[in-house]
Amino acid sequence: MPPLPLPPELDAFLALPNAAVVGTVRPDGSPHTVPTWYDWEAGRALMNLDARRVRLDHMRSDPRVSLTVLAADWYEHVSLLGRIVEIYDDTDLADIDRLCVRYQGHPFRTRDRARVSVWMEPERWHGWGESGNLVPR
Amino acid sequence: MPPLPLPPELDAFLALPNAAVVGTVRPDGSPHTVPTWYDWEAGRALMNLDARRVRLDHMRSDPRVSLTVLAADWYEHVSLLGRIVEIYDDTDLADIDRLCVRYQGHPFRTRDRARVSVWMEPERWHGWGESGNLVPR
Repeated sequence: MPPLPLPPELDAFLALPNAAVVGTVRPDGSPHTVPTWYDWEAGRALMNLDARRVRLDHMRSDPRVSLTVLAADWYEHVSLLGRIVEIYDDTDLADIDRLCVRYQGHPFRTRDRARVSVWMEPERWHGWGESGNLVPR
Repeated sequence: MPPLPLPPELDAFLALPNAAVVGTVRPDGSPHTVPTWYDWEAGRALMNLDARRVRLDHMRSDPRVSLTVLAADWYEHVSLLGRIVEIYDDTDLADIDRLCVRYQGHPFRTRDRARVSVWMEPERWHGWGESGNLVPR
């Protein structure tokens, strides 16, 4: 898998509100995956979780994550390997609103539950495009 | 996350040719995710990989995997946590043909590269449906 930077076409692809699945490692070392909203800014991915999500504990204890982003037909995709470099309380819900607007066009409707923002910084990537493998694997 | 068995509606959902992302653990303990075809039979998930995929080495050294399966609108989804219980050479390409027919309606076109089949047996699951969380999280 090549290191960064990402090719410009992948950077543009990541800027779209695509479906995505984030992979984390559980305390016993086994993998965990779940769909996620994300936003892409300056080479980092923003995600936002309910403060009670067990996944947040996983990220705090092992910041290494994998993010697979899928096009609508899911044959074009890119997977980013990296780590969570920033975690903070989304006290005014600005980040979850940002993500909800991006994906659904309106602010997040649940206003009474604490949210936490995490930023992932990718270190390596692999992908697949219309022309086949984007990189040797 | 509840143990098996899966509720009947999830079993039926998994039988559809949905998009899916499989999570594995790399030798350094970090997570790896990539989209995958799968088929669902008798409570197990079939996947099939090019024999040279590094992901196959991951599965051999640590059989614990996570499989997130997404509906077309990706708001309905189920994630299965479990392990690879069977690995064998797909010598006649029967399994990759089965998967390609399931997803694309025709046999797999690449006939000159070795393929390997793996079966995942889930142990726990979590999901999200139209009615919100399918389980407490």
